[in-house]
Order: sequence, then C-alpha cells, then structure tokens
Amino acid sequence: MSIRVIGFDADDTLWINENYFREGERKFCALMLPWHTEEKTMTLLYNNEMDTLDIYGFGIKGFMLSMIETASQIAKEELTTDIVHEIISIGKNMLLKPVELFKNVASTLEVLKQKYRLVLVTKGDLLDQERKLKKSGLENYFHHIEVMSDKHEANYKRLIQHLDIRPEEFVMVGNSLRSDILPVKKIGAHAIYIPYDLTWQHETVDAHDLHNIQFDTVSEISEVINLL
Amino acid sequence: MSIRVIGFDADDTLWINENYFREGERKFCALMLPWHTEEKTMTLLYNNEMDTLDIYGFGIKGFMLSMIETASQIAKEELTTDIVHEIISIGKNMLLKPVELFKNVASTLEVLKQKYRLVLVTKGDLLDQERKLKKSGLENYFHHIEVMSDKHEANYKRLIQHLDIRPEEFVMVGNSLRSDILPVKKIGAHAIYIPYDLTWQHETVDAHDLHNIQFDTVSEISEVINLL
Repeated sequence: MSIRVIGFDADDTLWINENYFREGERKFCALMLPWHTEEKTMTLLYNNEMDTLDIYGFGIKGFMLSMIETASQIAKEELTTDIVHEIISIGKNMLLKPVELFKNVASTLEVLKQKYRLVLVTKGDLLDQERKLKKSGLENYFHHIEVMSDKHEANYKRLIQHLDIRPEEFVMVGNSLRSDILPVKKIGAHAIYIPYDLTWQHETVDAHDLHNIQFDTVSEISEVINLL
Repeated sequence: MSIRVIGFDADDTLWINENYFREGERKFCALMLPWHTEEKTMTLLYNNEMDTLDIYGFGIKGFMLSMIETASQIAKEELTTDIVHEIISIGKNMLLKPVELFKNVASTLEVLKQKYRLVLVTKGDLLDQERKLKKSGLENYFHHIEVMSDKHEANYKRLIQHLDIRPEEFVMVGNSLRSDILPVKKIGAHAIYIPYDLTWQHETVDAHDLHNIQFDTVSEISEVINLL
C-alpha cells in the first residue's frame, strides 16, 4: 500500500458512542413499560427512526424526536408532560456526555501523524461531532474534520477528489462494515475494520454483501501501525 | 478588490427560509392559545431556543425540540398527544418544503461563475442544507458547500486557509449582519449585504457593533455583478 491519507471514523472507533444510545433506549423503554414490553417499544422506535432517517439524518436530535413520536404513539391519550420532559432529558444528557477514548488512540495517532495525513471522517450532526472532537483532545492530530450527511460512495469519492489523491492512496479505519468498509472498498480505496461489541442494527450488513471484498480486520487501533 | 472566491450564504440570500420558520411559529402559537397569548408563547419559545443553541445548534430539528419543550412547559398536565403530534407535523412539513429561489439568482451565479470560484457557506443542519441545495438546482454553480456549525471568525479563517487564498481575495454575500458581514469584515475579508424583510431575532446586531465597519449593501443579488 502506498497510503498518503488515513481516514478515521470517530464514534465507536476512537471513542465510545453506541453505549450511550443503548443507555438512552433502555431508559426510554422503561418509561414505556406501563404500555409495552421493552422489545415492542424497541421495534416501534427503530421503525420510526428508519422512517425519518431521510429527513432527520443521523444523530441525537433525530433520536430524541423519534422517541417523542414513539411515546405519543404508544401512550396515546395517556401521554404526560412528565414523559415528554424525561425524553428530552435523556437526549440532552447524551449531548453532554464526556468523551471516553478507547485505549491507545492518542499514542497511535501520534505515530501515524508523522508519516500520513490524518482526517476525521464522521457522519451525523456537525455541532455534536465538533463538540466531541474538542472534548477528545485529539483535534491537533487531524488535518481536518469531514462530517458527511451519510457515508456512501459518492461522498467518499468527493472526499478523495477534495484531498487531491488517488483512491489507492487512501485507507479508511472504522467499526462499521456498512459505512466505513464497503463504500470505501467499492471506490477502490483501502479499509481496515476494527469491530466494536455494539453495532446499531442500521449499520449491519448481509454476509453476501461482503463476498469478494478484501479488507484487514484488527482487534484494536494500535495494530493499524504495523499493518501499514 | 482583487476577489478570487465569492462565498454565498444560502437561507434568505439565495432562497426563502425565515418565512417558513415564521409560519411554523404562528402554527405553534395557535396550538398554545388555550393557555397563552402569541406574544408570551413566542418569548418562551425564543428563550428555550437560546438556552439550547449551544447543544442543539441551528436548524429545524432543534426548533422542533424547542417547540415540544415549550409546549410541555405551557400546557403542563394538559399536554396531549395531539399537540405533540401537531408540533412534529409542523417540523416535518418544514423539512419537506420546496426551495423557492429569489429572482435573478441563477442568472447571477451563471455570470459570476465565469470569473470567480463560488462557495456556498451556510450554517445549521448538514443534511437539510444538502437537501435544499439539491432541490434548488444550483449545485453546479458551486465549487463546494461549506456547512459550519456557526458562522464566527474562527470558522471563516479556517475556510480561507482551506481555500488557500488571502482574506482580501474573499468576499461574502449574505443577509445576516451578524453571521455574514461582521465576522467576515473582522478577519480582513470583504462583505456584501443583501437585507431581507425578515430577520430572526438572534441574527440582529446592535448599531454600535457596525461602527467603523465598511461594507456594500445591495437590494438584490444581480447588483453584486456590477459591484465586483
């Protein structure tokens, strides 16, 4: 590989994220227990998230709106101002969470920065991602931050064009097969997969989508150094 | 002026935006009429928007969450699922609005594109701004779209650095003194002001902030051609 630029996904690659969504979902399901089981609430919530994904996009604010809509569908006339207030608190709480880095993140970026240009490539809410990057203390490792509305092939192509490099000079490192690996491989760039324990249902892929797709898998970020 | 790049604000500079927020606010105030006058509801809503601006940022989703929070404060135990549903509809409706260009926008960009690099510089929600640009049919006039979490000096400095030009080679065209004119002038770049009938309270500035700040004002976008 003659890599010049490394793209790093942020959520669940550099720092914990999905756990906070799971925690939010659990609290929300607890609020809905008078009417529905956790399982049924989760299904309705996920369906509402998928129905609004094209207008809300990814991120905590859309998640908050989906919880509120789900609550009004579940509790119906029994919806109370306390429930609405609780849901808003769950979301605001998520927006104020500390940023907890995975181990060896800073030391790995420090080494890689000497040789490569590093770019943070995330999707979701611009302000929230900027907030997390600032809190992370990792700002100075990155040449710039690229927040995409979604991580699909066209957006990766635009990024590579913008960086003025060839696809084979780019490698993406991330925890989502759907967002960080598949679209990157499809445009002829490289990808390194770091699986994380928790994966949002939306980010999973069918096994057959991975057929004939070659990429390296590592168990933690510091292994990227030896791979390159 | 030896301009190389022109930055265009989008909302209320290229297309109608504030009117849709006003329409949303009116509908929301109507829902709150059993408890509060329009004036009192508007004050509470604005205060909630300001209180959450640093965590929600700009855009329709934050506006929706602020309406919901305001409704729960106003209606208290009398909050109903119908009200919540109505508020969500107001917001979704805004997210699906058509994009209505101001007159002479496309023809002006067509002329300016021959001589300058054009960049769309907006703030707010990434996905929503991309949606509007796509619907506008103006995509091909712009070298790229720059969505900022807020339009302050540091972000404009970063943009100019990124464009690899000097501040005096950049001119920003927009309808907000606070976001498009003042921070741009403060970093030594140029600015052209196109006032719009409606301005969100948050975007207004004190007269003394404009003291000693020089910029051109035009009544519509085609006048920019002759100014440059």
